[in-house]
Amino acid sequence: MNKVVTFGEIMMRIAPLGNKKLKQSNQLEYYFGGTEANVAISLSQLGNSTQHVSVVSDDFIGDAAKSYLQKFGVNTSSILFSEHPLGFYFLETGAVMRSSIISYNRSNSAFSHIDPKIIDWNTILEHCNWFHWTGITPALSENAYQVLKKGLEIANEKGIPISADPAYRSNLWKYGRNAKKTLNELVGLSSIFIGGPNEINELLGTSYSYTNEDFLKSSKKLVQEHPNIAKIFDKTRVSINANWHKIRARMWNGDTFEETDEFEITHVVDRIGTGDAYASGLIHGLLHYDDTKALQFANASCALKHTIEGDANLVSEKEILNVINGNLNGRIVR
Amino acid sequence: MNKVVTFGEIMMRIAPLGNKKLKQSNQLEYYFGGTEANVAISLSQLGNSTQHVSVVSDDFIGDAAKSYLQKFGVNTSSILFSEHPLGFYFLETGAVMRSSIISYNRSNSAFSHIDPKIIDWNTILEHCNWFHWTGITPALSENAYQVLKKGLEIANEKGIPISADPAYRSNLWKYGRNAKKTLNELVGLSSIFIGGPNEINELLGTSYSYTNEDFLKSSKKLVQEHPNIAKIFDKTRVSINANWHKIRARMWNGDTFEETDEFEITHVVDRIGTGDAYASGLIHGLLHYDDTKALQFANASCALKHTIEGDANLVSEKEILNVINGNLNGRIVR
Amino acid sequence: MNKVVTFGEIMMRIAPLGNKKLKQSNQLEYYFGGTEANVAISLSQLGNSTQHVSVVSDDFIGDAAKSYLQKFGVNTSSILFSEHPLGFYFLETGAVMRSSIISYNRSNSAFSHIDPKIIDWNTILEHCNWFHWTGITPALSENAYQVLKKGLEIANEKGIPISADPAYRSNLWKYGRNAKKTLNELVGLSSIFIGGPNEINELLGTSYSYTNEDFLKSSKKLVQEHPNIAKIFDKTRVSINANWHKIRARMWNGDTFEETDEFEITHVVDRIGTGDAYASGLIHGLLHYDDTKALQFANASCALKHTIEGDANLVSEKEILNVINGNLNGRIVR
Amino acid sequence: MNKVVTFGEIMMRIAPLGNKKLKQSNQLEYYFGGTEANVAISLSQLGNSTQHVSVVSDDFIGDAAKSYLQKFGVNTSSILFSEHPLGFYFLETGAVMRSSIISYNRSNSAFSHIDPKIIDWNTILEHCNWFHWTGITPALSENAYQVLKKGLEIANEKGIPISADPAYRSNLWKYGRNAKKTLNELVGLSSIFIGGPNEINELLGTSYSYTNEDFLKSSKKLVQEHPNIAKIFDKTRVSINANWHKIRARMWNGDTFEETDEFEITHVVDRIGTGDAYASGLIHGLLHYDDTKALQFANASCALKHTIEGDANLVSEKEILNVINGNLNGRIVR
Amino acid sequence: MNKVVTFGEIMMRIAPLGNKKLKQSNQLEYYFGGTEANVAISLSQLGNSTQHVSVVSDDFIGDAAKSYLQKFGVNTSSILFSEHPLGFYFLETGAVMRSSIISYNRSNSAFSHIDPKIIDWNTILEHCNWFHWTGITPALSENAYQVLKKGLEIANEKGIPISADPAYRSNLWKYGRNAKKTLNELVGLSSIFIGGPNEINELLGTSYSYTNEDFLKSSKKLVQEHPNIAKIFDKTRVSINANWHKIRARMWNGDTFEETDEFEITHVVDRIGTGDAYASGLIHGLLHYDDTKALQFANASCALKHTIEGDANLVSEKEILNVINGNLNGRIVR
Amino acid sequence: MNKVVTFGEIMMRIAPLGNKKLKQSNQLEYYFGGTEANVAISLSQLGNSTQHVSVVSDDFIGDAAKSYLQKFGVNTSSILFSEHPLGFYFLETGAVMRSSIISYNRSNSAFSHIDPKIIDWNTILEHCNWFHWTGITPALSENAYQVLKKGLEIANEKGIPISADPAYRSNLWKYGRNAKKTLNELVGLSSIFIGGPNEINELLGTSYSYTNEDFLKSSKKLVQEHPNIAKIFDKTRVSINANWHKIRARMWNGDTFEETDEFEITHVVDRIGTGDAYASGLIHGLLHYDDTKALQFANASCALKHTIEGDANLVSEKEILNVINGNLNGRIVR
Repeated sequence: MNKVVTFGEIMMRIAPLGNKKLKQSNQLEYYFGGTEANVAISLSQLGNSTQHVSVVSDDFIGDAAKSYLQKFGVNTSSILFSEHPLGFYFLETGAVMRSSIISYNRSNSAFSHIDPKIIDWNTILEHCNWFHWTGITPALSENAYQVLKKGLEIANEKGIPISADPAYRSNLWKYGRNAKKTLNELVGLSSIFIGGPNEINELLGTSYSYTNEDFLKSSKKLVQEHPNIAKIFDKTRVSINANWHKIRARMWNGDTFEETDEFEITHVVDRIGTGDAYASGLIHGLLHYDDTKALQFANASCALKHTIEGDANLVSEKEILNVINGNLNGRIVR
Repeated sequence: MNKVVTFGEIMMRIAPLGNKKLKQSNQLEYYFGGTEANVAISLSQLGNSTQHVSVVSDDFIGDAAKSYLQKFGVNTSSILFSEHPLGFYFLETGAVMRSSIISYNRSNSAFSHIDPKIIDWNTILEHCNWFHWTGITPALSENAYQVLKKGLEIANEKGIPISADPAYRSNLWKYGRNAKKTLNELVGLSSIFIGGPNEINELLGTSYSYTNEDFLKSSKKLVQEHPNIAKIFDKTRVSINANWHKIRARMWNGDTFEETDEFEITHVVDRIGTGDAYASGLIHGLLHYDDTKALQFANASCALKHTIEGDANLVSEKEILNVINGNLNGRIVR
Repeated sequence: MNKVVTFGEIMMRIAPLGNKKLKQSNQLEYYFGGTEANVAISLSQLGNSTQHVSVVSDDFIGDAAKSYLQKFGVNTSSILFSEHPLGFYFLETGAVMRSSIISYNRSNSAFSHIDPKIIDWNTILEHCNWFHWTGITPALSENAYQVLKKGLEIANEKGIPISADPAYRSNLWKYGRNAKKTLNELVGLSSIFIGGPNEINELLGTSYSYTNEDFLKSSKKLVQEHPNIAKIFDKTRVSINANWHKIRARMWNGDTFEETDEFEITHVVDRIGTGDAYASGLIHGLLHYDDTKALQFANASCALKHTIEGDANLVSEKEILNVINGNLNGRIVR
Repeated sequence: MNKVVTFGEIMMRIAPLGNKKLKQSNQLEYYFGGTEANVAISLSQLGNSTQHVSVVSDDFIGDAAKSYLQKFGVNTSSILFSEHPLGFYFLETGAVMRSSIISYNRSNSAFSHIDPKIIDWNTILEHCNWFHWTGITPALSENAYQVLKKGLEIANEKGIPISADPAYRSNLWKYGRNAKKTLNELVGLSSIFIGGPNEINELLGTSYSYTNEDFLKSSKKLVQEHPNIAKIFDKTRVSINANWHKIRARMWNGDTFEETDEFEITHVVDRIGTGDAYASGLIHGLLHYDDTKALQFANASCALKHTIEGDANLVSEKEILNVINGNLNGRIVR
Repeated sequence: MNKVVTFGEIMMRIAPLGNKKLKQSNQLEYYFGGTEANVAISLSQLGNSTQHVSVVSDDFIGDAAKSYLQKFGVNTSSILFSEHPLGFYFLETGAVMRSSIISYNRSNSAFSHIDPKIIDWNTILEHCNWFHWTGITPALSENAYQVLKKGLEIANEKGIPISADPAYRSNLWKYGRNAKKTLNELVGLSSIFIGGPNEINELLGTSYSYTNEDFLKSSKKLVQEHPNIAKIFDKTRVSINANWHKIRARMWNGDTFEETDEFEITHVVDRIGTGDAYASGLIHGLLHYDDTKALQFANASCALKHTIEGDANLVSEKEILNVINGNLNGRIVR
Repeated sequence: MNKVVTFGEIMMRIAPLGNKKLKQSNQLEYYFGGTEANVAISLSQLGNSTQHVSVVSDDFIGDAAKSYLQKFGVNTSSILFSEHPLGFYFLETGAVMRSSIISYNRSNSAFSHIDPKIIDWNTILEHCNWFHWTGITPALSENAYQVLKKGLEIANEKGIPISADPAYRSNLWKYGRNAKKTLNELVGLSSIFIGGPNEINELLGTSYSYTNEDFLKSSKKLVQEHPNIAKIFDKTRVSINANWHKIRARMWNGDTFEETDEFEITHVVDRIGTGDAYASGLIHGLLHYDDTKALQFANASCALKHTIEGDANLVSEKEILNVINGNLNGRIVR
């Protein structure tokens, strides 16, 4: 069985029910998430062996976070405990033209204080077939950056494929390090790039547009700058409003450009974590299928996540294949 | 007042809230249902006298099931108790292109063990104006088949109109009896057929298509094979996805073909039991109106069920008539 | 800071969850509302100083009602206690073509028994910049009418702008007074008219249609009859069904006619109180912006209320301005 | 099977969850109750045929109330609809030394407006074996009193045993009629008296104490004044606090005095309706057992009600007999 | 780290909230349990390595059951899937003198159909330090018995200590095999006996009483009959009522008799699974401490389980040691 | 009306329902609290004018916190917004011998970063009759200490009575300042001391025992050291377990020693905030009654808080007086 390793902060998501504002009710619901943990959970649900590397608080919250990943089959033996609190975020869910609002509380978190010495990458990456990271991690703290960089270096030594999802979040990166320079360094250690013109513009200071033509141009430019990047996978989204989205996926694998059909999600259940669902679908696809099917699988995984509550996609491989095969009418399965 | 008798298994439906998967939360919600019981409940809500014949478990679950039907006005004096458990099903509710999934637990149920000797059809069918059955019942067990057949024979003796909803479920029919032959035998004892080309193809081994033209042809063929069938009522559905459906109804009453306008259900609340809502609306319509209005009433009843949580339609006659009269904008009634 | 005074009944709204009918579950959810109180709450959330004048029951329900307004920042020092019960209403929430149903219990309420002697309008209206009333209040009881009329007279003496939302509800007005005559009297004491051809027809016995042309004609006719009315603000709604609405706003300010763009609300969360959200948005707009922006602000406030649970709009000024500026895709704000 | 008829107001009980105060949460839970309806529901659960006579609101609340009684097996064919609202009460549940608080809203209720002409007692009381009334009913309105009196007269004509639970509530009796005189008149039409020195003092203007000696004296005095009263059944309660009660029952059947053992209820779940559970247990007992066992059955029924949520006792005859037989340790039944 | 292997059915427990009867509300709550799985979960929470061997349904219910054990750290690699449904039970929770009622639905379960050929005991029991079984398993079906017996034989070959909790449930054992004879055979393959005079009487046909003296006599008798049994651990319970229990533990280790102090549980939260908490505490104790402390640990584990919702004890080793050390006042830990 | 000013951190309390552990359910419930805010809320509920001074996060969480205090009538005009997050704590509620566990997340909170320059004590303390502080505040940060000290100095200048509740929490005080020295400095600026031998020992380095004799000795010693302290009020608690407590209050007012009767709380609903309820009861008592009645009022307020969910006591003055008057049986108030 494949083994995928992910590394990143686990966060607790807390939200009032439905579309309520926090002050309207004292009932809340929680999930655990975090972009890389979401990928691990989904890959585990798809039948892969996964291990998530992280640090959580040494209290019943951190214990619950760890249990949460175990529940979905993720190996948690490299999730360590720390005296600092777990990061969390509150969510008020919007609708139609009202945006959802997220308030983060992670600046002092257990993960951001991660001690670089305690992560034994050599052992963790043994028998590993895939390593996945995102741009959130190096944005959190110097320590998080250091641990990630070390992990990428050792993964490179071991010849492990590395997927990079270098999404830039401007309201992070407060600890001093230069975002652009740092992300370029880390992308330089990766082999699969998850992103498109937006992310490439942030990395290279270019100004490509959202069109397929520019996707192709920007992809080639990226490969020129980072020849270690073998393939680029992007997704495009048209949001009619908070409840109604249309998504597509596209890729440049160094050889051909492809774009999937569009999925129309007329009744979004939960939009959070859909990018992570794309990433997990893509990694599963690249581990099991050819590039074309991997792209379709990523797109269908992303589409299905919009129907799942919580941060991580929990659908099965069979459900995703079913969508790829054109079964979109949601007929009851008895 | 009319008296309608229905016969069939009562099932408990258990589901996590909203679109959650079972393992995401330990909160559940339940309803009681079962296709024939749903018809009895709805007919009762529409103002008819109803009696449901069944067997439930002799514990607090069976007691709750019986109370549930009483609550909605169904006469439960012929619901008997048995040492076997009540049948139930778990539901995970999908959205958009994600299908809802149902897991049944009924193979060992109280109803499937029904003792043919304990149902006194002669008494039950006294002063009865209508008898309704579905293809689920004979698919469950030899005993269930025997009791149903006996009931149909006595209803025929008494000249009671009989509606047959012979939906074929391939994952039932495990006890040995031949589905096609059995359903033909029972349809041969009925007067109103609820179904269309699909159901007729299953009965007669034909291969009519879904078009109105083939509906008409297949209906005439059915009447030819089963001259006891006086009228045929069908419904057609286009599922854009799990949340967005379009429905119509059509009929052949031996004399004329008619088709209703289409209802567009843009925000499905609960799709389960919509066929039963069609059947109950049809029976109510045939008992109180002419064929044309009965067909419209059945279609509007079916449409409205999509907005009701649980298995049975709970709208009033007034609400259905309101929809028939073209009031589709859902304006608040104060 | 501006001070807006509102006067009217506070009601408790009680409803089963989701789209359930009352008899389907013993769980309920409540909010406090009432058309004028909703306006006060929203204006307070938008940053204005507000005071609501009312009478509630002298028990823990009235106490909770008062606390509810305080929570949202409304000054409640003129909310008095009475031995009579608080008015309330039950709501069953419909969907698609199924209408929501409201059952009122207010005929014997604390507010309808309001003692005209205990409201000290002179003190309440000191330093007040705006007074708002609706046609519900004079429809409830002679006492409510007397208190309102007195308030309007004193507001006129003090030169305070007065907005009138004279919606006529035919199932009220049971205490004897003539609705048309009374509303004309009170509109004659107001300066801003919230309504359109429908409301004007009810007042003047005319029969203008819903078109913009007739809106303009009827507005001019109203100003002719009630020269104290300076401006008229209306909203128009197309309901595809209970879940899908389209809204626009239009005005005649004595000088120019304007109409806003249309907002399409494809997934209505809660339709109740959208008119009050229009009124509160309008008052805020007229207090802070020019007529054009006030109209847009009112329309966007109304649109956003469709995404808020409960009776009162709770969005911020920033969220409304964001919508006016064309940000309709509901993208997550992190 | 026996048929018991009860007559009285059905009320909706609404309460926040647990020990919350209303303003602490917007979640509520409801039950239907009303002292005489509670008796009917419990007698039905104990296996008796019951019919409740009442008037409810002609809306979805009244419909839900009627369904509620049907669910528990009560015949509701004499529950009529009215344009007035259903009576209801709000409850905040106390604990230890904090009292529960109830706020009633019934003065304008459907039941209090009952039209004496529409209750056909002659038909209702056919084949009836028992009639039960309480002092709440004549305290509500002249109409309620008139209907009750007529019912008692016809029950007397038919020789039906009548149990009277004439609890005096000082905050009712607002419509003008003299409580003491009226209750004496109605007790004069009854055969079984449920009450003790308190209730007798209120009726006769005496001042007996709570002792067994005075219970006996007062009982004899009552029989002297109302020779139609054959037997007197009382219960005594020691409340350590809101969560911990001790109860006993005692009787004078014209022949012997008896007192039961004490039940200690160390963890009260719901104290409301325990008197009604006593009454229903007593009526069941007198219909099926001798006086001694009836008294024990009433006491055990009352004790068990303290463990049931909602207003009506829902335990089975078997559970009550089990308690009478000394099985008090609450061991799990598998 | 120690590795404990358990074998038995996983059941889903479904219950209405609080003390409600099923028919009072359509809200339910679920947990997974099963006596041996409970032991595995608790041992895992106490820091031990555990593996549970079982068969679950091949649907989302079985998947959720497996995830549930994973969440608490149990190795589930030997939990297999089957076409049969998962066993489950419904619970209505009593209070004071009202018993909780359990209704089982397990006769047709996935576990009872376990295929003896698919369990590879040799691999499972590698590096295993403890095997635990209970009398429920051989009571379910011939297959379950065969698999258990095989496991015990191989555990014996490997010299693994085996704890037997041979509780006899008279309403099981329906498949034909003689309970007494079968349990004796299996106890003959075990080394630690969890039980006392009751269980020994059932095994040996003796009639020892509940006293310590008879516990000692019966224990010696058991060892005489089954010399493989090295130690006997029992617990005694006094139930004042469903909410208030007192418990003690006692043992005969072949050498000395000991009895613990009594714990008084004045406010039981959940009584189910307290015996399993005793067993898991005992096994943990015997693996880490001497007999005396193991007995105390078992008793404190049992006591603490009464405060935990659900079937399995979830307290930490530290919490149990804290209770053993006399900290019984439940002071808040900040 | 009196005006009481309080100063301190507002915290969000988040907990799973009932006695669940966090990982057992994804449902949570929240309250806002914080020891000084609790006092303000309760004093407001008792009819006093209150103002709370604090800093909250500038997001929807801080907004909800502020609204929460407004709801209960507290003036929030001096609650400021900050870019830092709101402090919060998670709670797992224990039972019997299982302790509740609290996990704090406040080290980086908005309040701890309070800017001393922005609190205008001179304006805030105008017309103020009472100032209340606790030992939590100076334990949080240098800034919090500085603001508190400044407030106490200005309150002294204005001759405002100051109550000090200098509870020492060893797991705070991490920013460098010496706890003992700091608390002595602040107590030196106060007039009423809430505490007993424990708190005095911490301040003075003495070792008085818990007896009344030592309470008296220690009180006199404290007054000797801090002659500004006029009166000392203490409470004593015996915890049988987490659900069953006994409490008393005692005082030395410089003249006489008094002790109240004991209240036995057999069924604790929520133990958190009971000390704050004592303080608010005491302040209310000292503002309205003599010392003896103030002590009784404080004790009864504390006792009643054990029956209220959430952090702050919400009972009325009437409910407390009722308890003082010996009405402890919790009889329903209708």
